[in-house]
Amino acid sequence: MSACLASWVDGQPADRVPLDDRGLQYGDGLFETCVVRDGRMRFIEAHLARLANGCARLGIHCDLDVVRGDIELALRAAPARALLKIIVTRGSGRYRGYAPRDAGWRRIVQLFGGAPLHDDQRAMLGLARMRLSATPALAGLKHLNRLENVLAVAEVRPPEFDVLLLDEDGNIAGGSMCNLFLLSRGVLETPRVDRCGIAGIMRGIVMREAALLGLRCVERSLRLADLERADELFVTNARIGVVPVTRVGEHAFDMHVVTLKLRSHIESLDA
Amino acid sequence: MSACLASWVDGQPADRVPLDDRGLQYGDGLFETCVVRDGRMRFIEAHLARLANGCARLGIHCDLDVVRGDIELALRAAPARALLKIIVTRGSGRYRGYAPRDAGWRRIVQLFGGAPLHDDQRAMLGLARMRLSATPALAGLKHLNRLENVLAVAEVRPPEFDVLLLDEDGNIAGGSMCNLFLLSRGVLETPRVDRCGIAGIMRGIVMREAALLGLRCVERSLRLADLERADELFVTNARIGVVPVTRVGEHAFDMHVVTLKLRSHIESLDA
Repeated sequence: MSACLASWVDGQPADRVPLDDRGLQYGDGLFETCVVRDGRMRFIEAHLARLANGCARLGIHCDLDVVRGDIELALRAAPARALLKIIVTRGSGRYRGYAPRDAGWRRIVQLFGGAPLHDDQRAMLGLARMRLSATPALAGLKHLNRLENVLAVAEVRPPEFDVLLLDEDGNIAGGSMCNLFLLSRGVLETPRVDRCGIAGIMRGIVMREAALLGLRCVERSLRLADLERADELFVTNARIGVVPVTRVGEHAFDMHVVTLKLRSHIESLDA
Repeated sequence: MSACLASWVDGQPADRVPLDDRGLQYGDGLFETCVVRDGRMRFIEAHLARLANGCARLGIHCDLDVVRGDIELALRAAPARALLKIIVTRGSGRYRGYAPRDAGWRRIVQLFGGAPLHDDQRAMLGLARMRLSATPALAGLKHLNRLENVLAVAEVRPPEFDVLLLDEDGNIAGGSMCNLFLLSRGVLETPRVDRCGIAGIMRGIVMREAALLGLRCVERSLRLADLERADELFVTNARIGVVPVTRVGEHAFDMHVVTLKLRSHIESLDA
């Protein structure tokens, strides 16, 4: 499942990257995981905007028109359903060492066969023992420094879908690979991503579409105790969309009326 | 300066790595930067021990005998003075996603021309605005998630040698690429590395050799205010050895008697 169908480096077919690439050496880069449906990339503008913002925050040069060209190239090779992973690194450092100095940038694009979720996909979440560290300088970014996510997801035990992570202050950060939303008294609530976590594309889409559907959505600090007052719970990311959560540790959730309405609405969006 | 002379991937001459390497995808790996002198690698056992410890903490398979073979191979190609960078990643994931599952491991070795420091090398340190985040699960490890170091060293302004970093609680963490020691009332003090920072090889050598020289050395929390009671100050890493610090922001240090004695002693060590 999810085999790599094709890949490009700086717009050329390639399956390898130079050893001096700063993405490998230091995790000095960013990535986007995008869904291709009916030969088109979903939420392309949101992905490109996040990539541009990330590059600006890290000081990596990035020409979005060039990335758009890469995407078009990949889409021509894509089946109807696919995943597109776009990595932008600070390229090959001319010098050894952390200093970016005259480093440039490099684009890596990988096309994967899509593994569509079942319509009745539900998620059980475990509770991670590991706490996510607060890294304000990097918070929200989908950067390549993902060792904490790797260690967190290594805690997942079947049939768990993912683990729920707390930060060092005991606030809910989200899943290792998804954002969390709870519905309480008709209001959607989701953890902030200014201290840790990722500002997921689907998280942004949910917030935007919730507003259009007349559903209020707030970013706030959430604790595990807040799960007790949740009427519905779901997780999101670009690949899975909106997935109802049926259990987090000992907390069970069996109502997903608003969740399924949101999912169906977002699935039906054109882009 | 510091040109790459040769490189190997899994023991074979190569200058590229597959795109699905988890070192590139997630920074899922570790590295060692080692000094070659007179055709031998300095402090090889300390480097291998740290690598093994890091792999154990990350759950990466690592056969040290195989790494030793890689090092021997590289040393045969090395000039009298060189740098050897050894990267061990969790290899190519068979599946997309953070989960390590059945990932293996991969060794990447790069040989660089050595850029020996001048004997009279002195360091001025700037003060970084960025605070280093506490990441207990990864603290001390020389892992590939180095974006914070990249952002920190981007603050360096010539003629500064490096920047001094504080953690979020205001404790001194060290430089972006070196450990810090201060001498106060005849005792060496250096920040702990259990919340952030790297357990540098040269840091360990200094602690070991200081004891042999009858000099007490303690790991402790240090604040900027502690610099005021420092009689001597120096930074260390495997490449630079022991380098006297002459200035940190507004604090000047002009005595380096013990520092230079330590440096000369460590320089004279056989291994």
